[in-house]
Amino acid sequence: MRIEESFKCDRPIGAAVTPFSTDNSPPGNDSSGDTVSLDDLLAPPLNFSMVDYGVYRSGFPDYANFPFLRTLGLRSIIYLCPEPYPVANAEFLKANGIRLFQFGIEGSKEPFVNIPEDSIREALEVVLDEKNRPLLIHCKRGKHRTGCLVGCLRKLQKWCLTSIFDEYQRYAADKARVSDQRFIELFDVSSLKELSTPVAISKCQ
Amino acid sequence: MRIEESFKCDRPIGAAVTPFSTDNSPPGNDSSGDTVSLDDLLAPPLNFSMVDYGVYRSGFPDYANFPFLRTLGLRSIIYLCPEPYPVANAEFLKANGIRLFQFGIEGSKEPFVNIPEDSIREALEVVLDEKNRPLLIHCKRGKHRTGCLVGCLRKLQKWCLTSIFDEYQRYAADKARVSDQRFIELFDVSSLKELSTPVAISKCQ
Repeated sequence: MRIEESFKCDRPIGAAVTPFSTDNSPPGNDSSGDTVSLDDLLAPPLNFSMVDYGVYRSGFPDYANFPFLRTLGLRSIIYLCPEPYPVANAEFLKANGIRLFQFGIEGSKEPFVNIPEDSIREALEVVLDEKNRPLLIHCKRGKHRTGCLVGCLRKLQKWCLTSIFDEYQRYAADKARVSDQRFIELFDVSSLKELSTPVAISKCQ
Repeated sequence: MRIEESFKCDRPIGAAVTPFSTDNSPPGNDSSGDTVSLDDLLAPPLNFSMVDYGVYRSGFPDYANFPFLRTLGLRSIIYLCPEPYPVANAEFLKANGIRLFQFGIEGSKEPFVNIPEDSIREALEVVLDEKNRPLLIHCKRGKHRTGCLVGCLRKLQKWCLTSIFDEYQRYAADKARVSDQRFIELFDVSSLKELSTPVAISKCQ
């Protein structure tokens, strides 16, 4: 693992691989008149966003997203589905020294829903471990399983439920589930508090 | 301005003021059994999210959001509306050494839309200036004016338009405007490239 190189705790998103001040690419299809080629453009995974310093979330990344993911200098990926990781994605992780943490949570549908609290708790422990950051949390669409994990992280960060659900719903959109939000509301974070020190500050002070 | 104190370039969101490992608050209304009181809970502004390291976005913050905003150690706020800043918000900024950058962009509606490119460009220059971070970008609801500014930032970061619009639409939801997305598509970032160096990395290396 390229620990030192990968841990850019505050690398601007998308800026690392293609510094703007050194763009020598030929004119492309950009109607703004800016000189940029399609090859230079970066495509974040579906539903991608920053969650916290060194913590990102998204839907399932595919080949088109790999150049963007390289700019994040990821150290780990938390994969929340039971299906085996695709070969192309596994090769990308190997080539970039990224560790995979898989928690096989079934993509259940309401009204039959069973979110395994133990898996979310173990995944949250991975998120809270400084050694694993920068990391990307993803499931299939970045809505339900990822939303539950991020919601529990927000609860640990003492966000009020109104704000936690507002964030959950922004990513789940018309697929938002009351059962997921109820899971977050009932999730007990007290046993995790000793793990949740302000992780990355030590990297900058 | 409390420069040194305010510039925590990777302070975990919501964790700075209330470290989880020192929670001595009495039991509250948390159904999870976790010991937390309503007074301890933090309420981010509407539509709040991290955009990049030291860059946040949201709707209009009010008094209830001030405790959360304190945890961000903001150095600046970029306010994109023409209306005078409310007294309570102005006092919060003064008390916390936060500088206000106001760009009076009218909240125009389609089909009559006129987004001032110069204002967005000047606001983007403020975002790109390391001295102003950490900063919060906000308008009224964090959808259109804020969405245009963030969209132009993403263009500068070489995100493809598909991803830029996907992000814009996540915050604008059913209020998404084709005119805003067209503005982002046509916005010429070439003159800003020399300003967009990977700002915060120097803080961590």
